Amino acid sequence: MRTRTADVLVVGGGIIGLVTAWRAAQRGLATVVADPSPGGGAAHVAAGMLAAVTELQYGEQTLLDLNLASAARYPDFVEELTAATGLDSGYRPCGTLAVALDADDRADLRDLHAFQSSLGLDAQWLSGRDCRRLEPLLAPGVRGGLRVDGDHQVDPRRLAAALLRAARSAGADFVRAKAARITCAGDRVTGAELGDGTRVVAARTVLAAGCESGRLPGLPEDALPPVRPVKGQILRLRVPAERAPFLSRTVRAVVRGSHVYLVPRENGELVLGATSEEFGWDTAVTAGGVYELLRDAHELVPGITELPLTETLAGLRPGSPDNAPLLGPSPLEGLLLATGHHRNGVLLTPITGDVLGHVLDSGELPDYARPFAAGRFAGAARREQTV
Amino acid sequence: MRTRTADVLVVGGGIIGLVTAWRAAQRGLATVVADPSPGGGAAHVAAGMLAAVTELQYGEQTLLDLNLASAARYPDFVEELTAATGLDSGYRPCGTLAVALDADDRADLRDLHAFQSSLGLDAQWLSGRDCRRLEPLLAPGVRGGLRVDGDHQVDPRRLAAALLRAARSAGADFVRAKAARITCAGDRVTGAELGDGTRVVAARTVLAAGCESGRLPGLPEDALPPVRPVKGQILRLRVPAERAPFLSRTVRAVVRGSHVYLVPRENGELVLGATSEEFGWDTAVTAGGVYELLRDAHELVPGITELPLTETLAGLRPGSPDNAPLLGPSPLEGLLLATGHHRNGVLLTPITGDVLGHVLDSGELPDYARPFAAGRFAGAARREQTV
Repeated sequence: MRTRTADVLVVGGGIIGLVTAWRAAQRGLATVVADPSPGGGAAHVAAGMLAAVTELQYGEQTLLDLNLASAARYPDFVEELTAATGLDSGYRPCGTLAVALDADDRADLRDLHAFQSSLGLDAQWLSGRDCRRLEPLLAPGVRGGLRVDGDHQVDPRRLAAALLRAARSAGADFVRAKAARITCAGDRVTGAELGDGTRVVAARTVLAAGCESGRLPGLPEDALPPVRPVKGQILRLRVPAERAPFLSRTVRAVVRGSHVYLVPRENGELVLGATSEEFGWDTAVTAGGVYELLRDAHELVPGITELPLTETLAGLRPGSPDNAPLLGPSPLEGLLLATGHHRNGVLLTPITGDVLGHVLDSGELPDYARPFAAGRFAGAARREQTV
Repeated sequence: MRTRTADVLVVGGGIIGLVTAWRAAQRGLATVVADPSPGGGAAHVAAGMLAAVTELQYGEQTLLDLNLASAARYPDFVEELTAATGLDSGYRPCGTLAVALDADDRADLRDLHAFQSSLGLDAQWLSGRDCRRLEPLLAPGVRGGLRVDGDHQVDPRRLAAALLRAARSAGADFVRAKAARITCAGDRVTGAELGDGTRVVAARTVLAAGCESGRLPGLPEDALPPVRPVKGQILRLRVPAERAPFLSRTVRAVVRGSHVYLVPRENGELVLGATSEEFGWDTAVTAGGVYELLRDAHELVPGITELPLTETLAGLRPGSPDNAPLLGPSPLEGLLLATGHHRNGVLLTPITGDVLGHVLDSGELPDYARPFAAGRFAGAARREQTV
């Protein structure tokens, strides 16, 4: 068994692990990332909406603040990333239009608008006619909508590629293997044994393995973060040059209780998402998932039927009990968390990097991240176990 | 330029070209097949229904006779093929159930049944309840159906693999290149120049290039067979072991005027087809094609929604003016046709091999194939040109 030492071992090379490794390596910390295919993970499947305002949920105002703060950092973040790597992340400040397809949707969207306004968020109510003026391919039956000019997009695959290069350039080392087992000495995490036989001894270990973080071998049961897989199926269509621009901004709706959205990239890719399924670890693309996405998107923008369908894919979001991430020091010494980002992993990438950088510098969370402390469920988990 | 001589040059290595090459090589004829990827073609996309009776069309009784004759040859054909190659073709004598989902469908299916009966074909009318007794996963609303125990299936990809090996074993040579140009000397076809620079000089050239047969360079305009591409999109689902057998036979219906069918393989593959689109040479899988197939199949067998969707694919059938194949000697000396099989390429593979074998022996079509003579549209085409 080969042994390596590091200041920081990052378990998981998705966008969250990569941004953490980048920020660690920038600080001169000897950083190792363990992942069989770095740059993959849930971001490979994700649409890349930066939708802090349109995805606002009642009762999640705390998370909203983090989402808004991360969205605000995006322009500088992608500029820094491009300067460091020469790679473009496909950041597109295009705005979003959330529409209502019937009277019930309209009432729900009106309520959301009132809630947004009460929080001082920028969203503009449009009539159905004005929605179609903005996006002529919308279904004729659209009853109204919310124009949110601050909810943008990034291309998660390009973002991952840029982060991978940035982390490498800053000096992070990559081992192309899974973490087979987290290693502990008493109450202290000491690193991990990897699937290729490498033993990494690290002063600090960051779990950034998405939903896998919740079942990594080697940790005491009550130290495993309470993250679970939330399956998402997503499609990619292609807008042929002669039909471009098909849509000029992200268009979304709630159809029969399910969210459906169309995210148009500059390069002609049109991402159609997404299901949200709590079926464990299964990542099969199903006939029903694809059918419902196409059916709902067809109600929203009938003209999609003529577009080539180029990819069908499913991934697993790391869901947490309150839909917010788990960040920073865990109750176990030497172990940090950067997981549980659920639907917001792409949006929260810039601020997660900043939070983890701050933690690596100071050992503590910055104030704005305290509500997302990694240990906030630890007591609850223990209580449940002892009941 | 490398020159090769052959008794028979087969242009196209799909199942029709392969069966032709096999029969030619078995006769001791020096046979060359030109195809960039032999064993591919429309059969790679096809479902492999052998549905002479359920796909009966009014006005196509002549074609019916050929279809029935080929279906009758299938058991011996696949036995011979397996004996020659050790490969199984996935022939499955499972029968077919064609069902009606509403009163109009039911009336149409009743008419078809009467027509089938008038021709002495074996089909049995079942109540909706009896249909569901046979296939419990059928939609509860099924109004009745036709049980056709003689319409079976084969796996076209396995069939193609077996034919490829059979043709090779019998001595056929393969050049992995397209025919760039058919060569003529006066009124006589002399072979072809291939994309890799090979020149094949052949006593007889068989066009078996599917819909490409209609636009091969080098032939006089009025010698090009009148075949056109008819696009079909098709899906493959997977039946997990714990849900098998999902269906025990091919199940089909007409939904909103479109044919939809589910073909269950022994190995758990479930093929869901197919669109029929006259959009030229485009082979894109489209959002609308996939959507409609899933929608219609979901009406037929609601439980498909839970099955993994493993493949989406589009191919081009070689359509002819009367939906029947063009077989045997063409008006141009040295040129034979084996194309235009439209929806029936897999079904007609055994008899096409026999017809072409007979033609290579005798120079003439067997009596039963005379209605499908390759030259039957030549006069019409010339007349149209001179009008």
